[in-house]
Amino acid sequence: MKIHESHNAPNPRRVRFFLAEKGLEVPYEEVDIVNRVNRADEFRQKNPLSTVPVLELDDGTFISESVAICRYFEELHPQPPLFGTDAKDRALVEMWNRRMEFNILQPIADAFRQRHDFFKGRIRQLHEYAEVQRLNAEDGLDWLDRELGNRQFIAGERFSIADITAVVAIDFGRVSKITIKPDQQNLARWHAEVSARPSAKA
Amino acid sequence: MKIHESHNAPNPRRVRFFLAEKGLEVPYEEVDIVNRVNRADEFRQKNPLSTVPVLELDDGTFISESVAICRYFEELHPQPPLFGTDAKDRALVEMWNRRMEFNILQPIADAFRQRHDFFKGRIRQLHEYAEVQRLNAEDGLDWLDRELGNRQFIAGERFSIADITAVVAIDFGRVSKITIKPDQQNLARWHAEVSARPSAKA
Repeated sequence: MKIHESHNAPNPRRVRFFLAEKGLEVPYEEVDIVNRVNRADEFRQKNPLSTVPVLELDDGTFISESVAICRYFEELHPQPPLFGTDAKDRALVEMWNRRMEFNILQPIADAFRQRHDFFKGRIRQLHEYAEVQRLNAEDGLDWLDRELGNRQFIAGERFSIADITAVVAIDFGRVSKITIKPDQQNLARWHAEVSARPSAKA
Repeated sequence: MKIHESHNAPNPRRVRFFLAEKGLEVPYEEVDIVNRVNRADEFRQKNPLSTVPVLELDDGTFISESVAICRYFEELHPQPPLFGTDAKDRALVEMWNRRMEFNILQPIADAFRQRHDFFKGRIRQLHEYAEVQRLNAEDGLDWLDRELGNRQFIAGERFSIADITAVVAIDFGRVSKITIKPDQQNLARWHAEVSARPSAKA
C-alpha cells in the first residue's frame, strides 16, 4: 500500500492530516505535478482525472479523491472517529464537510486555479472567475466565523474531517491573499487550536 | 420527519431517487425558491446556506446537503446498499460519486447557474464561466462514455448513489443544451437502463 501525492498541494495534506489523527503511517510516493507526470499515460492508469492523492492498495486497486481515501481508513480504523459516531452524527459531519468543500475549499482553490500560471494550459482558465471566487471565499469565511461563535469545532464538540478540510483550505488561501481577518475572532480562535494539533504538520 | 425541497430542482431529485430505491417514503414540503422563501430568515434557520433539500428530524435537527441526507437513510436502512458494501467498495463508491459531482454535476449546474436569469441577483454570475463549464461538462461526458464501456454501472456491477448523481445531472443538462451525443453509445445504454428504474420518476 502507498499513496501517490504531491507534498505541497492542498488535497494530499488533507489525507496526511487525517492519517496523522488516526496514528497511521502509509508510505508516500511523490508525483512531479510541476513536470506534468500526473498527466502522462502511466499516471492516468492510476487516475484518469490526473488528480492527487491516489491510494494504491496491495491488490492493485487505485482509490482517488481525498475524502474517499479518508473514508477507507475510517472503515478500517474507526478510532478516533473523524466522520461521526452514529447515523445522525455521521450525516451532520458529512453536511459540514461538504459545506467546507463547497463554500470554503472550492472558492479558495478556484481563486488560485483560475488565475495562476501553474494551471495555464492545464485547465480552461478564466481570470475573472478567480476574482468571483475570491469574493465568495471571503463571504464563506465571514459566515464560518459566525458559525464558530457557539461551538469548539466545525461539526460540533468533536474534531472531524470537516475541520481538516477547512484548515487546509484556509492555509492554502494565503497564496491568493485570502486570510482570516482581524475581526474574525471565532475563526482565529478555531484556526489556532486546530493548527496546534501535531497532525497539522503532517 | 419531513424533507423541505423544491420539486423541480436537481438536488432534491437525487434524494427522492435514493429514497425510492430504498422503498422509503418521507413527507415533502415544497419550498418556493422562485419567490426566494429559501433566502428568508425562517428558512435560513433551517439551512443558513439556503439550499434545498433539507431533512428535518423529529428532534428538530436539520440536515442539508443531498449526500448527507442520503447517508443518514443508508445508515438506518442499509438495504439495498447504495454507498457500497465493505471498506474498499465504500471508498470506490465515494470516489465515483465525487467524480460525478465534480466532473459532471458541477459543470452542468454552473452552465445553468452562471448564466440563467433565475440566479441573477442570487449569486455572483459570470456568463463566460457558464460557457467554460459547458465545455468542461462535454469533456466529462466524453470521459464517462469511455468509462462505461467496460461495466454496467458507474461504480461497478452494482447500482449506487454515483448513478443517481450522474443521471440527475445529465437530465438537468438539457436546460443548458448539454445532452448525450449520438456517438456516446455507452453513456446512452447506461442512461436508458438507469432511467427505466421506477425510482427515476420519484
